[in-house]
Order: sequence, then structure tokens, then C-alpha cells
Amino acid sequence: MFEEIPIKSKKRNELIDITGEVQKAVEKAKLKEGLCVVYSPHTTAAVVVTEGADPSVQTDLINALNRLVPVAGPYTHREGNSDAHIKSAIIGNSRLIFIKNSKLLLGTWESCYFVEADGPRQRKIFVKIIEG
Amino acid sequence: MFEEIPIKSKKRNELIDITGEVQKAVEKAKLKEGLCVVYSPHTTAAVVVTEGADPSVQTDLINALNRLVPVAGPYTHREGNSDAHIKSAIIGNSRLIFIKNSKLLLGTWESCYFVEADGPRQRKIFVKIIEG
Amino acid sequence: MFEEIPIKSKKRNELIDITGEVQKAVEKAKLKEGLCVVYSPHTTAAVVVTEGADPSVQTDLINALNRLVPVAGPYTHREGNSDAHIKSAIIGNSRLIFIKNSKLLLGTWESCYFVEADGPRQRKIFVKIIEG
Repeated sequence: MFEEIPIKSKKRNELIDITGEVQKAVEKAKLKEGLCVVYSPHTTAAVVVTEGADPSVQTDLINALNRLVPVAGPYTHREGNSDAHIKSAIIGNSRLIFIKNSKLLLGTWESCYFVEADGPRQRKIFVKIIEG
Repeated sequence: MFEEIPIKSKKRNELIDITGEVQKAVEKAKLKEGLCVVYSPHTTAAVVVTEGADPSVQTDLINALNRLVPVAGPYTHREGNSDAHIKSAIIGNSRLIFIKNSKLLLGTWESCYFVEADGPRQRKIFVKIIEG
Repeated sequence: MFEEIPIKSKKRNELIDITGEVQKAVEKAKLKEGLCVVYSPHTTAAVVVTEGADPSVQTDLINALNRLVPVAGPYTHREGNSDAHIKSAIIGNSRLIFIKNSKLLLGTWESCYFVEADGPRQRKIFVKIIEG
């Protein structure tokens, strides 16, 4: 099963919790066991599974990425978003989550996030669900 | 097929070779060709496939991550393990390995590791095997 | 379906566009919907999906990785390529791309690259295609 889910980001750098939307796609698929792949088709964004309980973890991740890959460069790309491309490559544009008993099998503290690195923008994610 | 494998880490930062355990899960699945996904359900740990021949490669990876993401911060999360959350996001919480002739298809120098970033702790990994 | 594709790198650090080769493997598989996994079996290389339109994005990624993980170290591994092992772990040795209507479902600006971090060398990638 394939699903496209729209996302609207509000800041340049932001983690957007997409766990609920991905879980809805899993429920639609009506399978018991499988693999769920969450994919961002954008080259200035990423997907990550990280702690959802304390929002300060999200802030720390955004700030750490900004320190490692400063927006100011130096870069050769002329669009002012080279940092976003590099963050996207480092975090990666997809994550895999297992499906068990028709639900996402996440760890106790895990949630799934869209990592916006060049917002605000209209975005989307692709979700594929494979039985097995 | 789905398998849960317990892991015991002994240090705060450590790479634990899980190739043998993952290979055992593949053998249990009794399929010829497929995809094996190794998943850490922890937000302060990761999974990586890297060189297994020389243990100094593991040391260098741990030290490089500590330089890039220092335990001292600055961070806003108050549990003293923000660095571990960030390392987990950067390395990623899963890896894919192909199965060929009922075995993990690893490169000559490749082994699969659990990346502990906030140990010592009792941990686990999930392994899913999909035919195809 | 499983396919092995040879790659020849020409520089120490280089992004090599493999989108066309991966697309050919997808066409051979003759399936409509599925998952394509691109895997590097090398511990000093990686796979990434990033912008393909402006080559300066590739240059910026290579330079940013060199700043984050300098070739000079300090490292304990004696082969002079610890930086390449670390870059491989950070970017990751595989990427997933969806297949829709028998084609790779890439975003508008996305291309798939082999990330050489210790070339020039004869290399290879593994491609697996799973229906679903």
C-alpha cells in the first residue's frame, strides 16, 4: 500500500510529529505484520525516529544540527540552503518502522518526525506498507 | 519473521557486534532470498554496519561522535543524555542487510553493530525478515 | 530481484550519480509497485539521495563532511582512512526508494548517489527489489 500525506511546516528548522498520520496509513492497510517505510521526497528535509516525550530533545537536535552544519557555510550552492541539503543527507530521507498486530512497533519513547530544514513550506511524505 | 534479541551494554559509549545474533535469526527464517531489517527501539542508541576487522575503527567512530556531539552540550534536555539522542538520530535507528543463499550478504569487512550511546543498560533489538 | 552493479570512482571523495543504473535494475524486475533498496557493501563508502540539479550541492556535501570528519584525525586506526569509515557510518550504507508504475518514485530534485570516501577504487553496489 502506498500513501501520500501532506505536511505544512511553519519554521525554517522544525521537527513535526507524523506518528499519528503514519499510524492511520497502517490501519488503512489492514495487515497484521509488516514493514512501514516513511519517505521524504524533499532534498532539504529528512525523517527521523526519536524521543517524543520531552520536546527539549527536539530542540537539542535542531540546535546540534545547526552547530554542526551552520547556515552561513562556507558553501558554493547559491540558494542559501546548503545546510538543509547536508542535514537531509546526514539524518537521511527515510525511516523504517515495523508493524506488529496492525500497529507501528515503536519503542516506549519513540515517535516519528518529519525534519524540516528549509521551511516554512508545503511538504509531503510518502508511506509504503509491505506485508511480511 | 520477527525476532526480539536482548543486548547488555557495559559502557556509556560502545559498539556491540550483533552480526552473529542477526545471522541466527536469518537461519531460523529458513528462506533463500530476502531482506533483513535490524531495528533499535531505543532513542539513545543506534544500529550501524561498519568495519569489523580492526577494533580501532570502532574506537575512532565513538571518539568522532563524541567530538561532534559532546556530552557537555549546551543542551536544554535535563537528563544528561541529549548527546545520545542526537547520535542516535545521526547514525539512525535501523540498518538493512540483504539475504542471499540463506545468509546475510555483508561486504568483506562489514559487521553489524548496536551503537550504545547512553549505557550501561539492558537493551534489545528487533529483527524482521522479509522474503523477496 | 537482486542485482550487483560495478562502480568506478576517480577521486578520494566523490558523489557518483547511480540513478540511471538503479532505474535499469527496476525496469528489469518488471513489477509495478515495490521497494528498491540500494546497498553499498563497502565500509568506506555510503549511499545517499540528494539534489541532482545543481552539482554545487554535491561539492558542499563533500566539503561539509570533510570539515566534520577531517582526514587528519586524531584517529587510532592505522590505514589513513578512519574519516571514510566514519562518514560511511554517518551517511549510512543504504537508501530505500519506492517504485510506482514501474519507476523509481523520486522527488523533483532527487537523485541517488554512491558516496565515495576513500577512492579512487573499483566498487560495487547491491540493488534489491521487493514487490509490494
